[in-house]
Amino acid sequence: MSKIVMKFGGTSVADLDRIRHVASLVKREVDRGHQVAVTVSAMAGETNKLVGWTRELSPLHDAREYDVVVAAGEQITAGLLAVALSAIGVSARSWLGWQIPVRTSAMHGSARIESIDPTLMNERLAQGQVAVVAGFQGIASDNRISTLGRGGSDTSAVAVAAALQADRCDIYTDVDGVYTTDPRIVPKARRLEKIAFEEMLEMASLGAKVLQTRSVEIAMLYRVPVRVLSTFDSDAGGTLLCDEEDIVEKKPVTGIAYSRDEAKITLRRIPDQPGVAATIFGPLADAGVNVDMIVQNVSEDGRKTDLTFTVSRSELARALDAIEKNASAIGYKDVTSDGDVAKVSIIGIGMRAHPGVAQTMFRVLSEKGINIQVISTSEIKVSVLIAEEYVELAVRALHSAYELDEA
Amino acid sequence: MSKIVMKFGGTSVADLDRIRHVASLVKREVDRGHQVAVTVSAMAGETNKLVGWTRELSPLHDAREYDVVVAAGEQITAGLLAVALSAIGVSARSWLGWQIPVRTSAMHGSARIESIDPTLMNERLAQGQVAVVAGFQGIASDNRISTLGRGGSDTSAVAVAAALQADRCDIYTDVDGVYTTDPRIVPKARRLEKIAFEEMLEMASLGAKVLQTRSVEIAMLYRVPVRVLSTFDSDAGGTLLCDEEDIVEKKPVTGIAYSRDEAKITLRRIPDQPGVAATIFGPLADAGVNVDMIVQNVSEDGRKTDLTFTVSRSELARALDAIEKNASAIGYKDVTSDGDVAKVSIIGIGMRAHPGVAQTMFRVLSEKGINIQVISTSEIKVSVLIAEEYVELAVRALHSAYELDEA
Repeated sequence: MSKIVMKFGGTSVADLDRIRHVASLVKREVDRGHQVAVTVSAMAGETNKLVGWTRELSPLHDAREYDVVVAAGEQITAGLLAVALSAIGVSARSWLGWQIPVRTSAMHGSARIESIDPTLMNERLAQGQVAVVAGFQGIASDNRISTLGRGGSDTSAVAVAAALQADRCDIYTDVDGVYTTDPRIVPKARRLEKIAFEEMLEMASLGAKVLQTRSVEIAMLYRVPVRVLSTFDSDAGGTLLCDEEDIVEKKPVTGIAYSRDEAKITLRRIPDQPGVAATIFGPLADAGVNVDMIVQNVSEDGRKTDLTFTVSRSELARALDAIEKNASAIGYKDVTSDGDVAKVSIIGIGMRAHPGVAQTMFRVLSEKGINIQVISTSEIKVSVLIAEEYVELAVRALHSAYELDEA
Repeated sequence: MSKIVMKFGGTSVADLDRIRHVASLVKREVDRGHQVAVTVSAMAGETNKLVGWTRELSPLHDAREYDVVVAAGEQITAGLLAVALSAIGVSARSWLGWQIPVRTSAMHGSARIESIDPTLMNERLAQGQVAVVAGFQGIASDNRISTLGRGGSDTSAVAVAAALQADRCDIYTDVDGVYTTDPRIVPKARRLEKIAFEEMLEMASLGAKVLQTRSVEIAMLYRVPVRVLSTFDSDAGGTLLCDEEDIVEKKPVTGIAYSRDEAKITLRRIPDQPGVAATIFGPLADAGVNVDMIVQNVSEDGRKTDLTFTVSRSELARALDAIEKNASAIGYKDVTSDGDVAKVSIIGIGMRAHPGVAQTMFRVLSEKGINIQVISTSEIKVSVLIAEEYVELAVRALHSAYELDEA
């Protein structure tokens, strides 16, 4: 007998028929003798509707009230799934964030889970009752509902699995696993049998939408074996997230991620002197803008230089505003920006052992006539910023070059 | 400065524009210097949608999960109204049942409020913050969400007013007060300036849909001055619920109520002996069927008699089932039922001082050729059961006969 956590996203619980199907998948695990906790998202479209209403009433709404409104979506699904399970003879009850409780930080709208008390759920699991956990939500220290940010139900599921010391956390979604890259733009993309936590973390944070980044962090930290598999074809193999040591064949590159949510800002002829970075990035941090890639040219005359950095496209206007408000303190000649850029990344733990991996990337892109605007690297990934119109071409060329295409 | 509670029903908060309008009504009271708590229902149609989903998944659903699902409706409205209030500069926060807390009985789906702790809300009200309370919901002793039954937001509002010792509880709805009878069938119905708690209690329990019965009981018990007024024309006069002593002119009849949710069951030739009532009504009570009017004929031979009683139409099948399962214990010859009946009632505290009020009712119905099937009376009301097809005719004739028509 194992203890397992199952997670179902919005498309998996989009209507009553799908909720019944999810109930049958849960029953299958119960019939196998497992203790089961299920984490659910809101029905597809529900969160967008609730977010839309809140924004329409006030673009600058109180994040605490936003949380009250949107958390209702997962509450509804949790109750409905508990009813659907009872209807097929499976003992079940719903658990809301405040009932467990799932304690989070006070950053309403994008809270972080701080602790989950497994005591009450464990008692019921031991009695053979399925725990249906409303994902995405918790309770902050002010005794108010908090939510974890979009995709947060993945994080709820993995955190519940860690708290329950579950043997496995199965993330059911509308694809049957993690792919070498987005199959919508590369039909030859292959499903990965296994992927190392570190690689998945880079994939998620560099644009792969299959798991929320924070959920991978928690899985890695608590060594929760996570499987990604399809709700609609649960016998397909799926992908297992595991330790690096569990992966035998380490190719140089495991996967290719891309993100269109990028914008580039260049400040020309800023003073080439200590402290200038602080005058630029301080105001951006104060404005809540996350800066990603940064490149500073070598100065020609030792006095003035150019600086380029990237931000999320949705934060471009806010970033430019913060820069222009601090124009005199920074002392640049002019500022230009480009919202038509994208980031393409190659990821793989094998990179550590294979020199020349980055060089292949630069050569392939050059052969296709794609100009690299900014480069950033870490031990297991290389990211480049290119014009957005070349994204598909670049990803397909790299996918072939690193021998990821399906045979 | 007064402390007031305002309550808005589902049609008053049916969409974002109406929620904004409600926010403006709340702001008006805040601008007058009042401390304000607002109780809200789910957006019109939302509760029906959630109830429908739950029933479709399982007709015999767990009432605790039903409560989890449907309570989400009021949660959403409470958050949205708090956002709408902040957007027009009114400090506000939402309060869910479990946060206040509103403690209720464990009868999930139709729980009764047992206590409301006013401490936290009073602190915030004193700071000038509007309390937006999710109606219809509380928390039971099992730490799970409970709901109060349909129309329960009225009860939430009056109970919050009692707990806060509010100076007034204003129930905003889609009509501008309590009428002498349903204006949809009697165009000459008049709005009542005042109505005694006792009369309102009878009106509500005999079919007038303007307030939930339980809310009137609480208002009467705690002497909460309740006003019923229109959301869409809040300058119209409304109706004040008050003590009997505050009503100067006591007409014999104040109002006429009717209910189509009636069915009649007759057991023929049951033993005319002590204990037979228990053999009939015991099984009905066990089946959760509420029996309303009861009439037993004088037996002709001293040994056998007929018994007729009424139940809610939706409970007819269940009632017949319970009777038939106990056929041998009861010992009737046959059982007949009629679902095409309705109850018409006249209500008025003036009845106590005016003899002959019931006689007028019987005469008027007789003149119209309407047969009275069952009669039940109390100190301040007379109810009769008639064929449903005569309801409008009966109500209009009685409305004229008791001089309730608008001049």
